[in-house]
Amino acid sequence: MKIAVMGAGAVGCYYGAMLARAWHEVTLIGRPTHVEAMNRDGLLLDLGTSQEYVAVTGSTEASSVDGAELILFCVKSTDTEDAGQQIKPFIGKDTIILSLQNGVDNAERLGQVLGQPVIPVVVYVATSMGGAGHVKHHGRGELVIGMSSQSQVVADTLRPARIPVEISENADGALWAKMILNCAYNALSAITQTPYGELVKQDGVWDVMRNAVDECLAVAAACGVTVPGDVWGAIEKIVETMPAQFSSTAQDLARGKPSEIDYLNGYIVRKGREFGIATPTNLALHAITRLRELKGVAG
Amino acid sequence: MKIAVMGAGAVGCYYGAMLARAWHEVTLIGRPTHVEAMNRDGLLLDLGTSQEYVAVTGSTEASSVDGAELILFCVKSTDTEDAGQQIKPFIGKDTIILSLQNGVDNAERLGQVLGQPVIPVVVYVATSMGGAGHVKHHGRGELVIGMSSQSQVVADTLRPARIPVEISENADGALWAKMILNCAYNALSAITQTPYGELVKQDGVWDVMRNAVDECLAVAAACGVTVPGDVWGAIEKIVETMPAQFSSTAQDLARGKPSEIDYLNGYIVRKGREFGIATPTNLALHAITRLRELKGVAG
Repeated sequence: MKIAVMGAGAVGCYYGAMLARAWHEVTLIGRPTHVEAMNRDGLLLDLGTSQEYVAVTGSTEASSVDGAELILFCVKSTDTEDAGQQIKPFIGKDTIILSLQNGVDNAERLGQVLGQPVIPVVVYVATSMGGAGHVKHHGRGELVIGMSSQSQVVADTLRPARIPVEISENADGALWAKMILNCAYNALSAITQTPYGELVKQDGVWDVMRNAVDECLAVAAACGVTVPGDVWGAIEKIVETMPAQFSSTAQDLARGKPSEIDYLNGYIVRKGREFGIATPTNLALHAITRLRELKGVAG
Repeated sequence: MKIAVMGAGAVGCYYGAMLARAWHEVTLIGRPTHVEAMNRDGLLLDLGTSQEYVAVTGSTEASSVDGAELILFCVKSTDTEDAGQQIKPFIGKDTIILSLQNGVDNAERLGQVLGQPVIPVVVYVATSMGGAGHVKHHGRGELVIGMSSQSQVVADTLRPARIPVEISENADGALWAKMILNCAYNALSAITQTPYGELVKQDGVWDVMRNAVDECLAVAAACGVTVPGDVWGAIEKIVETMPAQFSSTAQDLARGKPSEIDYLNGYIVRKGREFGIATPTNLALHAITRLRELKGVAG
C-alpha cells in the first residue's frame, strides 16, 4: 500500500519503518536534515537487540502525501491545523487518515480542517530519535483505533507489519485515559525538570496528582466520556516502570521546543470552564508550565 | 535602652540601625562576615538619598542578647525554634520580645520555646543587604504590633527613632493579610524566577492567584481570624507598585538558600487539612516550590 507519514518524529518514524519493512511504499514528511539522512542511508530502525536500515522516501513537502491510500498524521497537537491545511489539497475522498497524536481532540480538529473523517488512534509506544534518520524503539507499540468503516482495512494492513491493533468502540475514552496520565505527570516533571521517580518522593506530589486526575475525570464525565480502566492504578504503576523517565513536556522545555501543554492540562481548563467545573490544579500546572516555557527552563 | 537584634538580615539591620541612630545601645547577632564589618566600620545605613555609618555592636553569639531589655527577633521562620533555644538561657522575665517575621505563627512558636509571651509584629518595609555590614532601605518602614501590657513601652521606644508604630487589636489578622499576599505571589515568582509584572501577563495567572487567596481566606475564617482590609485590592496593587520585584522566595531559591514556603503556602495546606478545607492551589504551589528548592532553580 502507498502510505504517507505526516510528521517524521519518533512515533511517525517508528510506525513508518515497521510498515516499510513489511514492503509497503512509505513516504515520511519531516525536517530537511532528517529527510536527507533517510534518502541517503534509509531509515535506521533501532530495536535495541537489532538495528536495520529500512528503505523509505523522505520529503520536506506536504504535497508528497499525494496518492497515498493511508496517511499517518503524527505532528504535534500545536501543529494540527497548519499541517492539515498543508496536506488538504493532496487528499482524495477515499484516503484513510489516522491521527496518532496526544490529546483528545486532534482527530476532530483535523477532520474539520480536511472536511472528511479522521480516525483517532491511541498510541502506546516508547520511542525516541537517536539522531537524523535514526529512530529508537524502547518498548510496546500497540495501537487502539476508533471505529469507522475503514478501521478493519487499517487493522488488516497494520497487523501483518507486526503492529498490534485493537479496534475499539471507546477509542476516545482511551485517548482521555492517556491524556489524564499526561495531565498528572507531564507538567510537574517539566516545571521541575525532574523524573517521575524523584517527583513522587516530595511530600504532597501524590496529592497534587490526585487532585489533577479528579478534575480530569469530572470534566470527562461532563463531556460524556467514559474513561476505561483503572486510571489511578496506571498512574501509580508509571513510577515503578519508568522512575527515570522525564515527561515529553519536560523534554520539550529542556530543548526550547513548544510543548503540547495547551492540549493536556490546558484542554482540561478550557473544557472545565465550558461546563462550569473547577479545575484549580490543572489551571496552576498549565499556567506555570507556560511561564516556564516562555522563560526557558534554565531561567 | 539596651536592645538586641537576633538575626541580622536586612529587616533586623534596618530597625537595629534606626534604633542605634536614636542613641539606643544596639547589639546585632548574625553571621561572621557581617559582624566583622559592623564592628570594624559600623553598620552602613543606606537610605538612598543619604548614607550613614551607625555605631552598633556585632556578635555571632546568641548569648549577646544577655541584658537586653528589648529583643527584635528577626530570623527566618525556618529557624525560629533553633534560634529561640539559643537565646532562651539569656532572657529575663521582663525582657520584651518582638517577632518581626513572616508567616503567622512565629510569635506563638517562639513563645512556646521561651515559655514567655512574644509580641507579634507585622513589618511593612522594603530593605535588602548591599553587602557585609551594609543595609539598604527602599521604602516604607512602619510596624503594626500586637496588644500586650508591654506594647505601649515598645511604641514609645520605637516612635522617637522614626519608626512608625501602630498598636493593633488585630495584629494576627494583619499578619494573615501579609501572608496571603505572599501565598499569592511568592511561589509563582520563585518557581518561574519571574518578577511580578511579568507573571501576571501569562493567561491564567490571575486565576491561580485568586484561587490561592480564596483558599487562604477560607482557612483564615476556620482559624477564627478576621483578615483586615481589601486583600485582593492589595494584591492587584503590588503589580503596579513593584512590577520588577522578585519574591523573597524567588531570591532564596536563586541563592540556594532554604525558603520560608513551609510557613506560607505550606502553612495553609497544613491548616486546611486540620479543618477539612480543600487547598489544591496552595498544595500545588507548595509542592512545586519544594521540588524546585531541592533541585536548585538552574535545574
